[in-house]
Amino acid sequence: MAPQKASGSYSCSSNMSTKADLEAIENQISTIQISSHGEMPARGFKPVEKGRNWGWLLSGFISLNALLLGIAIVSGSVFNKVQITSSHLLIFLILLVILSTVWMVYYKVHTSRVYRAVLYKDSHAGPVWLRSGLVLFGICSVIMDIFKIIFYVGRMNCESPIKIAFPVVQAVFVIVQTYVLWIHAKDCVQIKQNITRCGLMLTLSTNLMVWMMAVTEESLHQTVAPVKPPTNNNNSYNDTLDGRAAASECECLHNMCDLFEKAYYYLYPFNIEYSLFASAMTYVMWKNVGRKMDDHHSHKLHFSLWDVLVGPLAGLIVLVAGLATFVVYEVDVSKDDPKKKEEALIMHYIMNIVAVLLMSSSALAGCILFRMDKREQVSGKNPTRSLDVGLLVGASLGQFLICYFTIVAVLSSGVQGHTNGLNLACAMLTVIELCIQNAFLIKGLHREPFKETDVATVFANVMAVKERDLERRSSSIVPAHTLPIPLTLLQGRMSWKRRILKEICAFLLLCNVTLWIIPAFGARPQFDNTVGPDIYEFQTWAAVVNIGMPFGIFYRMHSVASLFEVCLAA
Amino acid sequence: MAPQKASGSYSCSSNMSTKADLEAIENQISTIQISSHGEMPARGFKPVEKGRNWGWLLSGFISLNALLLGIAIVSGSVFNKVQITSSHLLIFLILLVILSTVWMVYYKVHTSRVYRAVLYKDSHAGPVWLRSGLVLFGICSVIMDIFKIIFYVGRMNCESPIKIAFPVVQAVFVIVQTYVLWIHAKDCVQIKQNITRCGLMLTLSTNLMVWMMAVTEESLHQTVAPVKPPTNNNNSYNDTLDGRAAASECECLHNMCDLFEKAYYYLYPFNIEYSLFASAMTYVMWKNVGRKMDDHHSHKLHFSLWDVLVGPLAGLIVLVAGLATFVVYEVDVSKDDPKKKEEALIMHYIMNIVAVLLMSSSALAGCILFRMDKREQVSGKNPTRSLDVGLLVGASLGQFLICYFTIVAVLSSGVQGHTNGLNLACAMLTVIELCIQNAFLIKGLHREPFKETDVATVFANVMAVKERDLERRSSSIVPAHTLPIPLTLLQGRMSWKRRILKEICAFLLLCNVTLWIIPAFGARPQFDNTVGPDIYEFQTWAAVVNIGMPFGIFYRMHSVASLFEVCLAA
Repeated sequence: MAPQKASGSYSCSSNMSTKADLEAIENQISTIQISSHGEMPARGFKPVEKGRNWGWLLSGFISLNALLLGIAIVSGSVFNKVQITSSHLLIFLILLVILSTVWMVYYKVHTSRVYRAVLYKDSHAGPVWLRSGLVLFGICSVIMDIFKIIFYVGRMNCESPIKIAFPVVQAVFVIVQTYVLWIHAKDCVQIKQNITRCGLMLTLSTNLMVWMMAVTEESLHQTVAPVKPPTNNNNSYNDTLDGRAAASECECLHNMCDLFEKAYYYLYPFNIEYSLFASAMTYVMWKNVGRKMDDHHSHKLHFSLWDVLVGPLAGLIVLVAGLATFVVYEVDVSKDDPKKKEEALIMHYIMNIVAVLLMSSSALAGCILFRMDKREQVSGKNPTRSLDVGLLVGASLGQFLICYFTIVAVLSSGVQGHTNGLNLACAMLTVIELCIQNAFLIKGLHREPFKETDVATVFANVMAVKERDLERRSSSIVPAHTLPIPLTLLQGRMSWKRRILKEICAFLLLCNVTLWIIPAFGARPQFDNTVGPDIYEFQTWAAVVNIGMPFGIFYRMHSVASLFEVCLAA
Repeated sequence: MAPQKASGSYSCSSNMSTKADLEAIENQISTIQISSHGEMPARGFKPVEKGRNWGWLLSGFISLNALLLGIAIVSGSVFNKVQITSSHLLIFLILLVILSTVWMVYYKVHTSRVYRAVLYKDSHAGPVWLRSGLVLFGICSVIMDIFKIIFYVGRMNCESPIKIAFPVVQAVFVIVQTYVLWIHAKDCVQIKQNITRCGLMLTLSTNLMVWMMAVTEESLHQTVAPVKPPTNNNNSYNDTLDGRAAASECECLHNMCDLFEKAYYYLYPFNIEYSLFASAMTYVMWKNVGRKMDDHHSHKLHFSLWDVLVGPLAGLIVLVAGLATFVVYEVDVSKDDPKKKEEALIMHYIMNIVAVLLMSSSALAGCILFRMDKREQVSGKNPTRSLDVGLLVGASLGQFLICYFTIVAVLSSGVQGHTNGLNLACAMLTVIELCIQNAFLIKGLHREPFKETDVATVFANVMAVKERDLERRSSSIVPAHTLPIPLTLLQGRMSWKRRILKEICAFLLLCNVTLWIIPAFGARPQFDNTVGPDIYEFQTWAAVVNIGMPFGIFYRMHSVASLFEVCLAA
């Protein structure tokens, strides 16, 4: 009887461990069910879907309708001479802006008063670079609004009061929005989800409409201001959006109108960037409504500058060279001497070609390292990371677009002269660089952070658990420690790969900063070189550059942040 | 000791059942891991990601670059007078088309020769309506190409031979592609995934480029042909894309050029639709590369016409009325009498308003029924269904765009006369109808099919399994049958709701057929009514209508198919 009893008690102890395993697995299943909220693939598991509910649909339709109506009004105000004036567009925008502001105030008040309004925070959402950028560009936008108000107050006797009302309302909107997004960007709202979804989509539409209007105004301004003198034919554009045609007839009350007008046009690009940043953050918040996050294991990965040396040094050289050429370029281009201008362009292109070549080759090396290193990829469904990748690729489209338009323009103009040849080479190399860098970043963001690989393996491998279990059952003895060998032991072997990866990331990071600074602070070789406006009409070219460039700037900033993340996880 | 032993043996038998449960759950987990292929949400489970591999990235970049280069060339050929001619664009297209054709032939040969090349089929992909549409529009496209060849052969002495080469190559491409997509639309390719991904993306880009060129040509043709007489200023457009300006100087060799030219322009819309259909199917195939499907439980849901009566009858009345007004409209509009034209427009708008009002109210009733009926939603991650919904909403954007442009145009023109008032009402009601119908279809497609609810519950409810298990452990007796009561018993109570839903679906289906036929066979009230071209410039308006309309037609066809599916599952 004793062996039987013993066997019985053994199997009972095995039973206990099996029970524990069963519960652990069941817990894992319920975790999956909760965290996937409606995106489970398997037949058999059918949790009630939360994602596609009525609020989701309604908010989508609100945004869609507001945007399409906005597009129609903007198109009308651009192409029509008389019937659709800028006032109509401004009234529509004021309406949107006020509604969004009211909603944001309501949201702020409501969430701070209701207990458990926000149970979870998405640690990936609203990273610090995005929020800092938002504040920076927000300040510039408010200054722009103030300049606009002063300008239009000076012309009060001949302009519609709507023109003063809009910057006032916009300034309030920018301040409220920056405050709300700074504090609440990470929220996963749990109460009144439908209203929150609709409100967020309204805010998103407002930001996109403001972006659209700013881009249009900027393009029209460039079209009429520097290239074509105001002829009869062009008056329509002035009338429509800006009332600039009336400038000659309308007297300024305080004699500073010209100054403020110039000043606020310099600040337009910042307002465009602000709208893009706010849109991205609002979209993430909308995605996170109703999401239940497991409080995320924030990687406490340290970053030491002394780990890497060659990358940052090379990057610094590129940065300094970039800044130097940028300053020289800006000085030379502003002169009227066409020879100086061409020299400045040639210098700018050479600088860019060198930077982009170096970046391509180092990103390529990084990709090859990723391919050699068979580390597992994180494949958990993570909305923020998906969005990150989407925004990255989406923002790069702007730069792609400009490059391809340049390539076609230069090729069709016959590639005459050094400037054009360099312009062509620069555009082609940039295309290649964008492809490789995107691939590098997407791969890098999907990799498992290095330090956690060992821990992860323990939970990850269900088959191992099963095998362990079978082993236990057959041997009837519970081994003290059947965990896989921690991979940290293998750390030494991998370190040269990791080090090179870190060097590459640091180098690319500084290069991207360089390529961010140059256009962000006003270099526009696309307009200084005449090949674009010659081949396409000026307005088309201005539209392409004005839509593509802010996305390009956003892309470089986003790349810097992503590279930093990849560097930490490498 | 006996009780102890008994307890031990009991717990051992419980252990056995627990073991079985454990294995069942583990099987479920591995099913999830296989079928989710890289989209698992939970921390802990980290299968190696298959989705975002290098082939995926490379194919994406190929498509992106081809499309952006194409956009640049098309823009150049539209705006530039001399440097970028239609020949450049055609050479680019011929290259793309030949590459895609070669790849498709390779794919066909390779998959038919290699054993296990296609292990799985996606039963949702390439539904019969899509494939039939593809064949229908494919035939029209080939006829268009033949007409084009005859036309350009007649003008061989003064046109570039590229103009003949392109339709020849395109005809071959259309034939090969229609054949390949007809047979392989459901494939989930398992071998040479990277090459297949790249090939599919190349084909997708080719189709989108052909679509883009067709839309541009159609818009330019409408701009120069019916409205403006060819002045010096417009010659550039003719030169650029079509060589039509040379028509007066160039003599036709067989005297039938005019006839064939007119004929092939009538067939353009079919070619545009063909490209959209082929793009949608190629995209689904690309999504399905490497996907491992559990062979899907195809619903054997029968459809009997006698289940429903009121809906189909009312729908038939709308259909007949629609066809009648369509014929009268086409006859009246072609006359030069402006009074007749206005009457035709008024009739058309009234017909549309009535149809759209009825559709909105019935779709709204359907939505309310969905809200009352608490049936569970299917929430499995299903790429085909997500794509279905995406295509539906995306295609509806075309119609939305036209509606909003119309609304803004009519409002800004001051809503003078009956025609404008009706036009405005029609556009506004169509917007509402689109929103409600989209909501109805999205909700409907996400619902669990009725008949299977009972079976699904058994697998779905992990908590029930757990509870059952706990119950067993505590009572130590395995109950013979703890399954939930099959919901079929409740069928009688729900049948009135289901019947009304089926009636609604049948009615909406026939109404959508009506709204599909009218634009598909040539009614263009957008051009017969002058308010659009008056407010926007003609070219902008033509672009909006020519981009929006094919999507609108696609939307109506897609709605018909989705409504049929919702009707079956109701």
